[in-house]
Amino acid sequence: MDNQNIQNNTPSLGGKGPNRLEVCLTPALIPLYKVEDYIVVIIDIFRATTSISYGIENGAEAIIPVSQVEECSAYREKGLDYLLAAERNGEVVTGFDFGNSPFSYTKDKVAGKTIVLTTTNGTHALHLSRSAKKIITGAFINITAVCNWLKQQNENILLVCSGWKNNFNLEDTLFAGAVVEQFKGTDFRVDDPAIAANDLYQLAKNDLNQYLKKTSHSERLKKLGIEADIEFCLTIDSTTAIPVLEGDKLVKFPHTSTQLSMTPF
Amino acid sequence: MDNQNIQNNTPSLGGKGPNRLEVCLTPALIPLYKVEDYIVVIIDIFRATTSISYGIENGAEAIIPVSQVEECSAYREKGLDYLLAAERNGEVVTGFDFGNSPFSYTKDKVAGKTIVLTTTNGTHALHLSRSAKKIITGAFINITAVCNWLKQQNENILLVCSGWKNNFNLEDTLFAGAVVEQFKGTDFRVDDPAIAANDLYQLAKNDLNQYLKKTSHSERLKKLGIEADIEFCLTIDSTTAIPVLEGDKLVKFPHTSTQLSMTPF
Repeated sequence: MDNQNIQNNTPSLGGKGPNRLEVCLTPALIPLYKVEDYIVVIIDIFRATTSISYGIENGAEAIIPVSQVEECSAYREKGLDYLLAAERNGEVVTGFDFGNSPFSYTKDKVAGKTIVLTTTNGTHALHLSRSAKKIITGAFINITAVCNWLKQQNENILLVCSGWKNNFNLEDTLFAGAVVEQFKGTDFRVDDPAIAANDLYQLAKNDLNQYLKKTSHSERLKKLGIEADIEFCLTIDSTTAIPVLEGDKLVKFPHTSTQLSMTPF
Repeated sequence: MDNQNIQNNTPSLGGKGPNRLEVCLTPALIPLYKVEDYIVVIIDIFRATTSISYGIENGAEAIIPVSQVEECSAYREKGLDYLLAAERNGEVVTGFDFGNSPFSYTKDKVAGKTIVLTTTNGTHALHLSRSAKKIITGAFINITAVCNWLKQQNENILLVCSGWKNNFNLEDTLFAGAVVEQFKGTDFRVDDPAIAANDLYQLAKNDLNQYLKKTSHSERLKKLGIEADIEFCLTIDSTTAIPVLEGDKLVKFPHTSTQLSMTPF
C-alpha cells in the first residue's frame, strides 16, 4: 500500500478502546514494534512454549530457554543441579536428561527442578522482545488462562510468533488467531496480522491437527514419530499455569518459589 | 517450531515438481530468501502495481518507481520530458503532473511517455529484490496474464508483498493467495505463507472489497475519497500487459520500444 496517505495501521475489529492487540508474525518483524509499549506473549507451539507451560504447571521451579546445545551443556559444567533438555533428529543428545517432548515435563521429573531447554526460534523471539513491559509464554494447553490474565491487564498486547527460522509458520499464527478469538467483544483494537490470524483460525478451529496436515512440516513430523507430541501441543486448556520471564528464567506467575518457601526463617 | 529436527520448509500443496512457488509476506522478510534463485513478482495492490500495470497497458514507454517526492522532482530538474506522479494526503503535490490514482494512467495521458512514480513500499520491495533472475509486477488487473507467463517459465517464483511499512497487509497477501489459486494442479511446491495466503483468499474471493472493509485501512481510504480507486484495484483481468524491470525502469514485456521503432534506419 502506498503510505503517502495512511498514517497508522491500528484499526478496529469492533474494539475502539485505548489498547491494542497485535500479532507479530515472525521474530524478524519484532523491530517494527515499540516493544516497550506491550506485554509480549511468546508463541512456539511445536514444541517449546507447550513444554514450558506443561513444565511450569507440573511444578518446575524455573525453565531457562537457550539457543544452542552447547549453551545448554554449559549449565552442567557450572555444577548446578539442572535438568538439561536437548535433542537432534528426534533423539535425546548424549549426556542430556531429556529431549523436547512435552511428555518429558511430567510432575515426577520436573517438580522443584530448574530445566535448561534448547529452543532456537523461541529463544530468538524472547531475546528480541526483552524490552517489553512483561513477557509471558502461551500455548494451546494454557490459552484460556493466558487470555484471562491478559484481559485483566490494562496494557497493549503483542502476540509474537516464533515461526521457523525467522519466517512465518502456520501453527504459531493459528494460536495467535485463537487468542484474538477470545478477545472478541472486548475493546482492544487489532491490526491486519491479527485479522488474518483469526481468519485462518476460523478455517482450522474444528480440527487444528487436520488443518496443519497440509502444511510444511506435516510429513517430516510424521517421520520423526512425534505425532503424539503434536496432538498434545494442540490440546486446549489442559493446564492453567502462566510462565512469566524473570531475568533469564521462566517461572510460574505469580511466582511462589519452592526454594524460598523451604528456606528456614 | 523447534528446528532441531526440521531441515527445510518447502512442502507441497499437491505439487512435487522441482520448482517452488513461495510468498514473502513483507519486504522485511526478503533477506530470508536467496532471491537470485527466483523470478520475483512485486505486489503493491493499493495502488502502485495496479497503476503500473494500467500505465504499461496503456502504452507508457516506461515507469520508474522512486521512494521520495524529492527523487521524483529531481527528474524534472534533469530537463527530461517525464510525467511525474506524487501525492500527499490525497492531493497531487504542487508542480507534479498527477497523483497515485490508476485513473491518471489512461492512454491519452501516458502513451509513449515515461512516468516517475512515487511509491514507498513498492520501491523498497523492488530494491531488496534486485538480485532476482527477473522482476515483474503483479496486480489483480493483470493477474491471469502474470500467472500464464509465470507458468511458462521453468523457474522458482517468489511473490513479494510490499505490505505497509515493512509489515504485513491483507490486500497484497490476498493477491498472492489468488496467484496460488491459479497454480493449483501444477507441480509447484508451496510454503506456509503461500498456504495461508491462499486460505485467506478463499475467504475473501467472492467479494474482495467487502472482505477488506474490516481491515486497517478501510475507514481511512473512505475518508480519502479513493473508493473508486480501490474498486478499480480489485478488478480482475481488465488488462494483459506485464511490467518487467529493466535497469531502473519498468517496461512492457516483451519490450517493444516506441522510440526504437520510430528511429529511422
